[in-house]
Amino acid sequence: MQNSRSKPCSCPSLKLREVASMYLTMVAAFLVILVVALQGSVPQESDFPYKVPLDPQGLLELSWNVSYPEQAVHFQLLIRELRFGLLFGMSDRGEFENADLAVLWSDGHNSYFGDAWSDAKGQLHMDSQQDYQLLGARRAPEGLYLLFRRAFSTCDPKDYLIEDGTVHLIYGILEKPVPSLQAINISALHGGLQRVQLLKPNISIPELPSDMKSMEITAPDVVIPSQETTYWCYMAELPEGFPKHHIIMYEPVVTAGNEALVHHMEVFQCTAQFDSFPHYNGPCDSKMKPDRLNYCRHVLAAWAMGAQAFYYPEEAGLAFGGPGSSRYLRLEIHYHNPLVFKGRRDSSGIRLYYTATLRPYDAGIMELGLVYTPVMAIPPGEHSFILTGYCTDKCTQLALPAAGIRIFASQLHTHLAGRKVVTVLSRDGRERQVVNADGHYSPHFQEIRMLKEVVAVFPGDELITTCTYNTEDRSRATVGGFGILEEMCVNYVHYYPQTQLELCKSAVDPGYLHRYFNLVNRFNDEEICMCPQVSVPQQFYSIPWNTFNRDVLKSLYAFAPISMHCNKSSAVRFPGEWEKQPLPRITERLREPVPRCPPVPEPQPAAPVPLNLGHLRR
Amino acid sequence: MQNSRSKPCSCPSLKLREVASMYLTMVAAFLVILVVALQGSVPQESDFPYKVPLDPQGLLELSWNVSYPEQAVHFQLLIRELRFGLLFGMSDRGEFENADLAVLWSDGHNSYFGDAWSDAKGQLHMDSQQDYQLLGARRAPEGLYLLFRRAFSTCDPKDYLIEDGTVHLIYGILEKPVPSLQAINISALHGGLQRVQLLKPNISIPELPSDMKSMEITAPDVVIPSQETTYWCYMAELPEGFPKHHIIMYEPVVTAGNEALVHHMEVFQCTAQFDSFPHYNGPCDSKMKPDRLNYCRHVLAAWAMGAQAFYYPEEAGLAFGGPGSSRYLRLEIHYHNPLVFKGRRDSSGIRLYYTATLRPYDAGIMELGLVYTPVMAIPPGEHSFILTGYCTDKCTQLALPAAGIRIFASQLHTHLAGRKVVTVLSRDGRERQVVNADGHYSPHFQEIRMLKEVVAVFPGDELITTCTYNTEDRSRATVGGFGILEEMCVNYVHYYPQTQLELCKSAVDPGYLHRYFNLVNRFNDEEICMCPQVSVPQQFYSIPWNTFNRDVLKSLYAFAPISMHCNKSSAVRFPGEWEKQPLPRITERLREPVPRCPPVPEPQPAAPVPLNLGHLRR
Repeated sequence: MQNSRSKPCSCPSLKLREVASMYLTMVAAFLVILVVALQGSVPQESDFPYKVPLDPQGLLELSWNVSYPEQAVHFQLLIRELRFGLLFGMSDRGEFENADLAVLWSDGHNSYFGDAWSDAKGQLHMDSQQDYQLLGARRAPEGLYLLFRRAFSTCDPKDYLIEDGTVHLIYGILEKPVPSLQAINISALHGGLQRVQLLKPNISIPELPSDMKSMEITAPDVVIPSQETTYWCYMAELPEGFPKHHIIMYEPVVTAGNEALVHHMEVFQCTAQFDSFPHYNGPCDSKMKPDRLNYCRHVLAAWAMGAQAFYYPEEAGLAFGGPGSSRYLRLEIHYHNPLVFKGRRDSSGIRLYYTATLRPYDAGIMELGLVYTPVMAIPPGEHSFILTGYCTDKCTQLALPAAGIRIFASQLHTHLAGRKVVTVLSRDGRERQVVNADGHYSPHFQEIRMLKEVVAVFPGDELITTCTYNTEDRSRATVGGFGILEEMCVNYVHYYPQTQLELCKSAVDPGYLHRYFNLVNRFNDEEICMCPQVSVPQQFYSIPWNTFNRDVLKSLYAFAPISMHCNKSSAVRFPGEWEKQPLPRITERLREPVPRCPPVPEPQPAAPVPLNLGHLRR
Repeated sequence: MQNSRSKPCSCPSLKLREVASMYLTMVAAFLVILVVALQGSVPQESDFPYKVPLDPQGLLELSWNVSYPEQAVHFQLLIRELRFGLLFGMSDRGEFENADLAVLWSDGHNSYFGDAWSDAKGQLHMDSQQDYQLLGARRAPEGLYLLFRRAFSTCDPKDYLIEDGTVHLIYGILEKPVPSLQAINISALHGGLQRVQLLKPNISIPELPSDMKSMEITAPDVVIPSQETTYWCYMAELPEGFPKHHIIMYEPVVTAGNEALVHHMEVFQCTAQFDSFPHYNGPCDSKMKPDRLNYCRHVLAAWAMGAQAFYYPEEAGLAFGGPGSSRYLRLEIHYHNPLVFKGRRDSSGIRLYYTATLRPYDAGIMELGLVYTPVMAIPPGEHSFILTGYCTDKCTQLALPAAGIRIFASQLHTHLAGRKVVTVLSRDGRERQVVNADGHYSPHFQEIRMLKEVVAVFPGDELITTCTYNTEDRSRATVGGFGILEEMCVNYVHYYPQTQLELCKSAVDPGYLHRYFNLVNRFNDEEICMCPQVSVPQQFYSIPWNTFNRDVLKSLYAFAPISMHCNKSSAVRFPGEWEKQPLPRITERLREPVPRCPPVPEPQPAAPVPLNLGHLRR
């Protein structure tokens, strides 16, 4: 088989080029690219502070840094076992169609790097403007490092705009040589997606006190179940008589080798209304799980893949311990095991750093958005249906101190239909500032994110949270609620100083919704008596959805007065009239930011960059 | 007063520059610009086939031509009495704010030409890209000719996009020198607007037969009333026994000197249902006008300022004369006399060219759009409210010949609130072609326009006519109807071969509208009994307009079935079921055309072009 060209080929349709590729594939299944000009010195670990595995085996590892002055991201991609190339890129929600891609490919002789895009059918095209700029390639014992740079915004309409919030990274591995970029068949690739927050905020780490202690809340040598998705629950306990402390920082503890499996982790504190909680260590959805664990929902710490340590601002810490607070903590770990590894053991968790020297302010968490109620519903078959929850001026007027509060972090939350979430601060009817926005939100990637800028909220301000849902795959209405197939629209904002205000959320007035049901029934000519004993979800499920009923529901939500939950805790409202409140009026919207085009090195011509090929190995 | 600078100035706030201007103004009230480099030879009359006076005195006269290969318009502006400069330009609806302007100005010493724009406050700014390209200036006994060129689309966001349909031209005359472009105070200018169709279609003139005769329908030496607006009515009569002929062409006859006063003219044929009509010669709104003249509404010819002769395609002519057709014609002339000239005499009208050698096809006129009924209404206070009228597949299937019809001209029609009109041809649910569109439609400028391309319509096709209305100045709903404060949405299409189909229009099903009224009443909590004896307009007038009632009306019109008028004449329907018809479904929309950026001479730098000043006179 050393020289297959000299033998007659049994496959008559093979062309010479294909035969040549086959030959090369046989001679060497692995292709090695030698070092190309590496511009500048070898990068240090600290040059790329953020790191995430791309694939579940950890063969591809992405590190990156963010330069806000340059408005660019520098990527370092470690490829542990390079075959005939690699696709790396970004797309709206992780799909391989309409994606923006950096492609490294080999035709069996030479290797090339180029900026490409895929069309709606997944066909690859070279980009007319080369915006993934190759900075270098480096061989190391662990694999090949590729270094490249990408401006946030390129002003090439085929390019992905890198924004705050979630970015869906995609990767694909070329198992065979390809004659050209256009010849790559995306649907045949071994590939996948990874969600990250690329544009990490550029905030300095506050000084930590010398009396700082740490505590690990970790899983006790769990055998990761051999199934794609597991939520693991483990109950931990603070020492008896543990006094009030401030959590001032926390970080993930991930068992070595499991970096690609541990998807996200949260530590919840249980409610103080029960004196004790059962110990439990097992899947969260098990029938064996004691019901009482449902009362452990107060978030103390949350981490997701790609996130780093979380630091509280130096004036504030999160109180835990002491009288009036439960000693019981629940650790929840989401294991993502798509390759269904068996018998993998894990002791991951979160390490809390805390101090007895209390900081000036307790930090608090406030829920913004929609009340968990079925009156807020999404018709089926919608591509982008919008629901909005309000925290009104009347509530902030009553509940916030005159000096205001400072929001420093935010965790956005919806269930499975959520696609975008944004909270905007409005004052005197004018939108002033985005508190947090994620235009590529995924319910599978919920982190607590530090804000780039602390947002000051004063009495009389309004906080408006808008969620966009996709229900194209559903055949009946999706109502608000706790169930995984019901929906939420929430922004948990982390702020200080803590106030009594725990919930500032809204829902449409139920009386107006009732009128909507009547209207829809009468209009649709079906003289069904909407008896009051029929539940709101049942009424939504029975609506014959058409454009009219859909449009009128939209009009209702945009018009009807709201019921406000301006609450001290989920059950206790601030005193006042909170029913049939007027919708906040917005007279001036924030402008969409105009993306800056790259102010930096000229884009390179639309031709692939040839790479210097070294020896072949297997 | 020869040297005012040597005298003390009585006005202490005057600056030197202003004093200098005053001096120059006194020395010479008129400024003359000598010939600048005129590129190429002196233009011929035929180089600029289209001509329109800009001002009511006819001091400014615009001629132009259109180059479709270059995608540009060449302008020749004759300025009969130049003072210190001139503004000429275009804006959405003829306003001086947000306008795109070519400016010729003098500081008293030098004259300049530049491309400018005005902001929302009317302040002038030099354009960063100079897209009005000065080609030359020429002195002649009658005045100064300025020649310049403008691409349809410049890709400068401050520039006006020249599209098919109405263009609102504006002009302003500088009475005093100005130190700079920025110093021009638009609100103090003597100026105005003129509407034209700039992009005349580029169609060749069909050959005319040798036996062609002509007939003038002209006003008999009318004294134009000394008021801004007059509609003059004059009854004419064909000879007795006048046999069937084909009108194959017509053109305006405008009394010399009245070019700026005769705004538009139409010739209507009366209905054959009356044997005779009274002779009348007077204002159309006079109480003396016999009511029977209201039965003279069948358009034979229509002309508006700036339009040229109208030619029928060589296969077709408009039948008139012969049995079954009335001998009586009504000429209507709109005199626009804003300067209130007194005693001006006029004998304008239309010259019809016709032949007894009938062409293969009779031409016909068909009405598309909305039925004249109050069920189609526009809420008050709307900036852009859209109503749509349908000519359904079912109607065209029944009424059109298998070989289809050819639409060659179109006259769009609304009343005072109309802002845009468009008709689109759809086939199998996919929009295929724009029949006629006017994004700057004005009810004050209704011409019959030749289409750039003849549109073939086959049985089963749908013709969808959409009108956009502005009711910001109204406090109650505007319903459909004949009144000037009621609305219409009509496209009169001229086509051949003539069919029996005269009307293909729609309106919302009245039963669904009734449900809407019920719904609105119940929803708004006002238990008013909408007694059936209350008229539709009264019901619309009694609606408390808010965003909900407005949005639901929109949803209703986008959803409810329609009542079709698929009629042989306004009273006789084609046989079939025409009530509660489904709305046409559109699965694919036409794409907005992407404006081509100028492929032609590079834009000039953003600096005014100095002009060579000659001697001063007066």
